Amino acid sequence: MSPSSAEGPDPGPADADNGPAVSRREFDALFETVRTWGRWAPADRGAWNRVTAEHVRRATAVVRAGKVVPLGLPWNTLPGPDNPRPALHHMTDLGDVESPEPSTHKDFIAADYHGKAVTHLDALCHVAYRGQLYDGRTAKVLVGAAGARFGAVSALGPLVTRGVLLDLPAVLGVRWLEPGQAVRAKDVIAAESALDVTIGEGDAVLLRSGHVRRRGELGAWDPGAASAGFHVDAVPLLAERGIALLGGDGDSDVRPSPVDGVHSPVHALALAAMGVPLLDNLDLEALSAATAEAGRHEFLLVVAPLNVPGGTGSPVNPVAVL
Amino acid sequence: MSPSSAEGPDPGPADADNGPAVSRREFDALFETVRTWGRWAPADRGAWNRVTAEHVRRATAVVRAGKVVPLGLPWNTLPGPDNPRPALHHMTDLGDVESPEPSTHKDFIAADYHGKAVTHLDALCHVAYRGQLYDGRTAKVLVGAAGARFGAVSALGPLVTRGVLLDLPAVLGVRWLEPGQAVRAKDVIAAESALDVTIGEGDAVLLRSGHVRRRGELGAWDPGAASAGFHVDAVPLLAERGIALLGGDGDSDVRPSPVDGVHSPVHALALAAMGVPLLDNLDLEALSAATAEAGRHEFLLVVAPLNVPGGTGSPVNPVAVL
Amino acid sequence: MSPSSAEGPDPGPADADNGPAVSRREFDALFETVRTWGRWAPADRGAWNRVTAEHVRRATAVVRAGKVVPLGLPWNTLPGPDNPRPALHHMTDLGDVESPEPSTHKDFIAADYHGKAVTHLDALCHVAYRGQLYDGRTAKVLVGAAGARFGAVSALGPLVTRGVLLDLPAVLGVRWLEPGQAVRAKDVIAAESALDVTIGEGDAVLLRSGHVRRRGELGAWDPGAASAGFHVDAVPLLAERGIALLGGDGDSDVRPSPVDGVHSPVHALALAAMGVPLLDNLDLEALSAATAEAGRHEFLLVVAPLNVPGGTGSPVNPVAVL
Amino acid sequence: MSPSSAEGPDPGPADADNGPAVSRREFDALFETVRTWGRWAPADRGAWNRVTAEHVRRATAVVRAGKVVPLGLPWNTLPGPDNPRPALHHMTDLGDVESPEPSTHKDFIAADYHGKAVTHLDALCHVAYRGQLYDGRTAKVLVGAAGARFGAVSALGPLVTRGVLLDLPAVLGVRWLEPGQAVRAKDVIAAESALDVTIGEGDAVLLRSGHVRRRGELGAWDPGAASAGFHVDAVPLLAERGIALLGGDGDSDVRPSPVDGVHSPVHALALAAMGVPLLDNLDLEALSAATAEAGRHEFLLVVAPLNVPGGTGSPVNPVAVL
Repeated sequence: MSPSSAEGPDPGPADADNGPAVSRREFDALFETVRTWGRWAPADRGAWNRVTAEHVRRATAVVRAGKVVPLGLPWNTLPGPDNPRPALHHMTDLGDVESPEPSTHKDFIAADYHGKAVTHLDALCHVAYRGQLYDGRTAKVLVGAAGARFGAVSALGPLVTRGVLLDLPAVLGVRWLEPGQAVRAKDVIAAESALDVTIGEGDAVLLRSGHVRRRGELGAWDPGAASAGFHVDAVPLLAERGIALLGGDGDSDVRPSPVDGVHSPVHALALAAMGVPLLDNLDLEALSAATAEAGRHEFLLVVAPLNVPGGTGSPVNPVAVL
Repeated sequence: MSPSSAEGPDPGPADADNGPAVSRREFDALFETVRTWGRWAPADRGAWNRVTAEHVRRATAVVRAGKVVPLGLPWNTLPGPDNPRPALHHMTDLGDVESPEPSTHKDFIAADYHGKAVTHLDALCHVAYRGQLYDGRTAKVLVGAAGARFGAVSALGPLVTRGVLLDLPAVLGVRWLEPGQAVRAKDVIAAESALDVTIGEGDAVLLRSGHVRRRGELGAWDPGAASAGFHVDAVPLLAERGIALLGGDGDSDVRPSPVDGVHSPVHALALAAMGVPLLDNLDLEALSAATAEAGRHEFLLVVAPLNVPGGTGSPVNPVAVL
Repeated sequence: MSPSSAEGPDPGPADADNGPAVSRREFDALFETVRTWGRWAPADRGAWNRVTAEHVRRATAVVRAGKVVPLGLPWNTLPGPDNPRPALHHMTDLGDVESPEPSTHKDFIAADYHGKAVTHLDALCHVAYRGQLYDGRTAKVLVGAAGARFGAVSALGPLVTRGVLLDLPAVLGVRWLEPGQAVRAKDVIAAESALDVTIGEGDAVLLRSGHVRRRGELGAWDPGAASAGFHVDAVPLLAERGIALLGGDGDSDVRPSPVDGVHSPVHALALAAMGVPLLDNLDLEALSAATAEAGRHEFLLVVAPLNVPGGTGSPVNPVAVL
Repeated sequence: MSPSSAEGPDPGPADADNGPAVSRREFDALFETVRTWGRWAPADRGAWNRVTAEHVRRATAVVRAGKVVPLGLPWNTLPGPDNPRPALHHMTDLGDVESPEPSTHKDFIAADYHGKAVTHLDALCHVAYRGQLYDGRTAKVLVGAAGARFGAVSALGPLVTRGVLLDLPAVLGVRWLEPGQAVRAKDVIAAESALDVTIGEGDAVLLRSGHVRRRGELGAWDPGAASAGFHVDAVPLLAERGIALLGGDGDSDVRPSPVDGVHSPVHALALAAMGVPLLDNLDLEALSAATAEAGRHEFLLVVAPLNVPGGTGSPVNPVAVL
């Protein structure tokens, strides 16, 4: 998230509909409704505890074509309106540092990966609402300069589950959703129907808005100012279905936020209330084509975050297998 | 690889058997024997071209228990005899940089990941033998400060295939192979027989030497000076079987190298001759326990390198599913 | 230098006069004219060999007011048209990593400091013309992934000498020179006269164009596209005077370059021909005010680059003492 | 500081005398004695406010020989017992990234510079005692992930003052002080007498223990476990003299600490009580030779920290001019 950034070109039509305004009181009530604190052990795996061995088996059984689709954006070292903290990539050996034979080429990578430019997983400790992490843990006590002692990515490990693509542009017959366009509960239901897929327990739900296609055709904009994503009214539906993971080609939140005083309400609900990790900034273009071709919008999804003790998430290259 | 490092405590018994000495001429002949240059397009995916949709389907069909086992070591920021270039992990937002609500926690990770401390994938451009990358490409022309234009990790993408664990300590009834102990062709065949598994086309072969267990019990040593791994005489067998990926809890090469004037001969053969990417520094302890419990040494393996354009590899957290 | 960057807003009036066009042949002749190869030992200190103990003594004797003026810009972690590779600044201990008492706060800094955003010194190895570093050394042989073996900043050490401020806006009675405005030999001579100062042997010559003032008032632009600086016709005069160091609030080169096929001709002449290190991106606003107040445009200048073995330069915070 | 590190070889004779034990109560009384809170504006320049224009003039007038001596250690990218967080140095352009002419070579440097390996300045915010920074400011409120809002290095700017070298090995006729050897008030007075120099107001006092010479001859050790430095009983004398800066080839603190429950008591007194910044890890070997040759132990000292907003200090290459 970089909710307050204002740099970059105008993101698009000002008339995109980010849905009905939500008061802070309504939001807080919603937070209580979807809250799953105290439900699981270990708590910091949150909703990933839903994914049982049976879910894993069923997820692998979804594979038909044997087609593998990576969902990670290229490592982006160029600054831009959606990349204020560009990643680093340095070659550290060009065959002239270590002695041959063989000669070796090495490189160094670095990233402050949260934000809008790096495909990454948010661990539960990434976000606190009213000072509380998931499960009601106190952020100030548990997160410090040495890392997070609760809700770290190292507590999550990898996820292997069924993925479902909500390909909104395909459903709506548009090239992309405009930045600022909300995806609401009714849109999720309509998409399930149109795509003939039903979100179920332990699923990873991936929302395609066409962000990457739009960026490729029109250039980058500041998604902190405007991006397509879920309105909070879709969250109870997702909670009810018992999802394990939520992701998208944006960062799941529609922006500007419809919730008064909460810049990233879906983040707060998913991470802090529901214990549902998030996948931000996916490239879903190839997956959209593959699901369209297959006529099926479910697939095996594997997310393998780096094992960073105390980390708030990880850059990832999620893999869909159809 | 860090072939020439000599720091750190003595790695263990000097009498570990690294196998018969191999002359440079014999090695060069072996290189020719296993060479697959010109065989595939795109060339820089090398042996991963062997993994067809059919292999992917069969790999997912291997899953029985639905048990997920991550193979990545913890991100290691502490220097040591096996970690001269420690990774970095910095917390960049502790809820006090961006405005709430919600508050956000962020971190920065960085690594010069080749070496012995970070679980990583070697892309084909990582190594050149006699100035040539895989497929006979000229390293000096294709690899520069801006990255590699051939054999980069971004050309590989993810791998989904069947994995086979050669659990040598389990076969031999020892806690670990001592550093310097070679694994030879006959040992591979004996392991297949003992473990009731046969390495086949498109497989990922993972060699467990017990490195991580030994390190945990006795402390770190310099694996550049001594580590258990394959003797080059095992490579023709692996080549004949048509493997796609080779990996281990070391870096696949037995050290000291038995090959005169070649510090990392298995790297040279796998990457430069055969186009077989390598997985270095896996944690195979949990996988050893899981395969023992399941009584099966095959599994679905997913390797999802970060999509770094021009990169020589990637830190990864490979996932085995049994 | 970032000669080819084209991002960012329009830098200003298109009618700034970057001086007469210079052909490549004329430039090469000029290069020969000012070349000092073979003159000094050690060669990689270049023109800093001119600064004898006597120069140091005289420079300290210039001090009258005892006024200290730093010339370094703030460490800039924000991307912009003049900052495509922003510096990093991470807090790594907030009193919660090491044990008290006392508690400690620590930070990490990082920069790919060449470019237009970080005040830095260019060592002689920063630039090669026609493949040759200063003193005719071959760049490809001497500069590699492990650093430079000739002309490194570690060979320079610090400089203590007399500084002279060529405050062009003060001379011309303007707020700043527009981006693209050339400073020519005749302008240098006129400035000496107007400011009552004469550039002499071993001096550090600092050119103020008002860049920092303009940036503060109008916002950042891409100085690779347009910046005020020296036309190459000023270089023979500076060479004749025997300067040791050249610097400015730009990077000394007027851009667009007036030299056909040479994007940074003053860099090439100063570093590769004359052995004169460069100081780029100074903040000369406070120095301008201080020299105006003192009525003297000479001062003690101390430049203390970090001692980076093999480095191509260093971020610095040069100090003027009036 | 890295007070608790225990790695590395034994630092030397266990019989080095770190001086009389000091109780926490005695220490706290001492802290009150030397405290200068509320004395200066701006408070976060602390004792540097003592250095008036007159001090600057007198410091430059100290120069006789015109000899320039840098005091910075080489940038150290190798881990060791005194370097658990090695600095980074990457070449980012080898003439093949930007287009010629000229071709350019660039590099990236990075450091988590506090500790024992990088020559650096500690700004006042580096240390808090009982939760309080210098001037009684509350650390938790003023130092966060975005940096320090009080006592930052950017508030210090550069220092130009008279330096005094307390060359203890020269005074004592030894090659170096052994790690763990305390320098006490009486030793400072004896050194002043032997070296014919008197510490005065606004001075920078540099303590040479011969650390760098010992390291060069015997190898690195962990200075967190044992290093020569001041016993706290020397601090009131330094406070009385009105020094502006304290530095050394160690980090000013004798270790093990003689103060019960305070790992770095001189740091706490200098930074938090007195507002005196510290220079750690200087290379004073060349300065020792130069002062011996000149027969004078005073010199012009220039310290020019990088201008890092909110930074806790800076890597520096201080310059002495004799």
